[in-house]
Amino acid sequence: MERVVVIGGDAAGMSAAAQITRGVEPREVVVFERGEYTSFAACGLPYFVGGVVADRDDLVARSPEQHRKNGIDVRTRHEVIAIDTEAREVEVHDLDSGTSTRERYDHLVVATGGSPLRPPLPGIDAAGVFGIHTIPDAVRIDDMLRDRSPRRAVVVGGGYIGLEMAEAFQLRGLEVTLVEKLPQPMSTLDVDMGARVADAMRAMGIELRLGVGVEGFATGDDGQVRAVVTADGEVPADIVVIGLGVRPNTKLTAEAGIPIGPSGGIVTDARMATPVDGVWAAGDCVESFHRVSRRPVSIALGTHANKQGRVVGLNLSGSHARFPGVIGTAITKVGSVEIARTGLTEREAAAAGFDAVAGTIEGASRAHYYPGGSALTVKIVAERGSGRLLGAQIVGGVEAAKRIDALAVAVWEEMTVDEFSQLDLAYAPPFSPVWDPTMIATRKAGDKVR
Amino acid sequence: MERVVVIGGDAAGMSAAAQITRGVEPREVVVFERGEYTSFAACGLPYFVGGVVADRDDLVARSPEQHRKNGIDVRTRHEVIAIDTEAREVEVHDLDSGTSTRERYDHLVVATGGSPLRPPLPGIDAAGVFGIHTIPDAVRIDDMLRDRSPRRAVVVGGGYIGLEMAEAFQLRGLEVTLVEKLPQPMSTLDVDMGARVADAMRAMGIELRLGVGVEGFATGDDGQVRAVVTADGEVPADIVVIGLGVRPNTKLTAEAGIPIGPSGGIVTDARMATPVDGVWAAGDCVESFHRVSRRPVSIALGTHANKQGRVVGLNLSGSHARFPGVIGTAITKVGSVEIARTGLTEREAAAAGFDAVAGTIEGASRAHYYPGGSALTVKIVAERGSGRLLGAQIVGGVEAAKRIDALAVAVWEEMTVDEFSQLDLAYAPPFSPVWDPTMIATRKAGDKVR
Repeated sequence: MERVVVIGGDAAGMSAAAQITRGVEPREVVVFERGEYTSFAACGLPYFVGGVVADRDDLVARSPEQHRKNGIDVRTRHEVIAIDTEAREVEVHDLDSGTSTRERYDHLVVATGGSPLRPPLPGIDAAGVFGIHTIPDAVRIDDMLRDRSPRRAVVVGGGYIGLEMAEAFQLRGLEVTLVEKLPQPMSTLDVDMGARVADAMRAMGIELRLGVGVEGFATGDDGQVRAVVTADGEVPADIVVIGLGVRPNTKLTAEAGIPIGPSGGIVTDARMATPVDGVWAAGDCVESFHRVSRRPVSIALGTHANKQGRVVGLNLSGSHARFPGVIGTAITKVGSVEIARTGLTEREAAAAGFDAVAGTIEGASRAHYYPGGSALTVKIVAERGSGRLLGAQIVGGVEAAKRIDALAVAVWEEMTVDEFSQLDLAYAPPFSPVWDPTMIATRKAGDKVR
Repeated sequence: MERVVVIGGDAAGMSAAAQITRGVEPREVVVFERGEYTSFAACGLPYFVGGVVADRDDLVARSPEQHRKNGIDVRTRHEVIAIDTEAREVEVHDLDSGTSTRERYDHLVVATGGSPLRPPLPGIDAAGVFGIHTIPDAVRIDDMLRDRSPRRAVVVGGGYIGLEMAEAFQLRGLEVTLVEKLPQPMSTLDVDMGARVADAMRAMGIELRLGVGVEGFATGDDGQVRAVVTADGEVPADIVVIGLGVRPNTKLTAEAGIPIGPSGGIVTDARMATPVDGVWAAGDCVESFHRVSRRPVSIALGTHANKQGRVVGLNLSGSHARFPGVIGTAITKVGSVEIARTGLTEREAAAAGFDAVAGTIEGASRAHYYPGGSALTVKIVAERGSGRLLGAQIVGGVEAAKRIDALAVAVWEEMTVDEFSQLDLAYAPPFSPVWDPTMIATRKAGDKVR
């Protein structure tokens, strides 16, 4: 029986493993995971810290025991420290016993995930300065919130995780300051849309220090962090979270000669096979094909990880599957402010060589006379001349952000803005105005592309 | 200056008129409307009755006065009673003065709308038996609810308007019974999905009398309705609303020789021109091309009316525009139960000649650990062999139904279910599970098409 070794028990690794056990070809499947958890929802961690999710175990879709019952040989606290692609073996370090063994494989699945960026600044290892990437990270933050009742939280980084942690600390009753090097939060949006996010966060009472680089962390006599040191001076802090994004974990594979692409992730084809025979990869460690820019991108997101893992599993168990790529769809919220994007921003479109125009409108999520909806801003990016829909961004209240999905399908399908504005989307007063704001925005962009 | 005459001040007629005044070609625009209102939201009427919308004027997007300020010569209480397509004249009856005049046109826009079905049953004209199609209808119902405090409401018809009126009466504190001739409410859904709606309505405390035809209305000595008479016996009623759907108003145009299509609506091409020179039509009075069944359909819906009116207006003011057709997308709610559909149901697909299969799943609107979402059922209809997505239906709680839009774009684009299940839709725990229920459902349908 052929043996599949999976490096990493994250969503991608466990999706691959689970799919293989459901396949038509019998396989031995061994997963080596250096931590204690499998299949946990990293994207749920801020909600555990915020108290929205009460039990950390809720974040674990399937425990190692459950996976074992399904026929997957999961070995936690086991770290793969070397790959020998010639001999088809991996060297595995048992973190508890301290021993190492070599394990053979017929097929290797690399799901090493990503690591949070953690710049080597003075004081970054001080007590009270946290990352937020694993369940133990979240538990340590929660413990400190319970044990030490910090009053002032500083979040470093204004991206998805930064906003989500700002919300979490506010839910726990802390004063929150967000420090971001760039002049706007959510730099994955265009500046005009990021400004709307900034306004909404300030209205929530979150202090924003924008355009401010972090130089280090000052500690008190007790060794606890007491301030974030910036070029603009100190920002007092009883607790700090670094949320600067995630970088693909590729050290292990690079040492084994498995190619890394220009975006920093492991290179695969559409079947998620690396150029090295017998080696597959999936999840936050790989780069994906962006269908609009037609360039490789590294995007750490559970939905891609799950799909890619499933594709690997299908290909390793007698089926054929392809991962068709990504278009940069993303969504988050901070308080009642919803934020979403898909495709390319205006800036990204220009960088990808498109002659792009944009149309932005203010709209509402429901008919003007139906109570309870919210205001939202929709920005549409389109190609001049052809009118091709290149991307969309939404910032608004409740019911705003999930509207991005219809736009995401249209971007995927390379529809024009005129085509989008004529679609048969669902209309009833509690759900939408007669002209959905997404359609008004594409109409406005349509006026500009000509 | 060329003169455009618009028959009907509904959403379609006023959209056409407004678009013409914005166009590059100067035109005289005259609108004849037999009622007192223009541009009112018929779909909002149940929400006025339910007390969700407090002021009837909120349902009027633009009053006749506002339209006049924009350069449109709106004449309310004026009914067009004949069209002479040879002479290019209409005969107009002034309902206040009782006089008639002939008015010439260069271009005629027919926006005569639809009329609610009102079968000639014994007692249908009794006091307390209402239709719900105009603002005066809604005001009469509201007046009766205030003046006579009826206790028991019966809604005849289990479609969109029936469900919405059932909700409205319940919000006003009445006991509600819904009588439907077919064995399920929402017969625009497949039977299995209609059953879910029925269960949810019963759980709300609405009594359902299904598979029961109405034979008439019994009145008391005071002439007020006291019961709905059915084949199954009498259903006590203090107030009754007939919600049996809407039929295109085509008598006027048929008399003028303007062709009616097989679905009962006025025939137009994609520019919304009828086969008769100089005559255009838009809104509930026309039939539309269904892009999946490739057959004409008559669908009374404000979103189509607005789009079609705009297309007419563009074509009459120096631009070129086409209405690309419909795919039968619809959405509604009853209490907290959300209902949506797009494309073809399983039954409709078979009737249209497709070899169709279906996949149905139960899912959730948010990550399993994120509180506050709801359960939902998604049914996907796909073509055997090709895997083409033919249609989708959703029944669920909050956040369920608007998910239909992504599926509507995919149906429109003739995507396959496998393609849909690989899309880059927006994922974050407060908005979606890692695998959105729509993607799980298309995956399940994908397993069946092979």
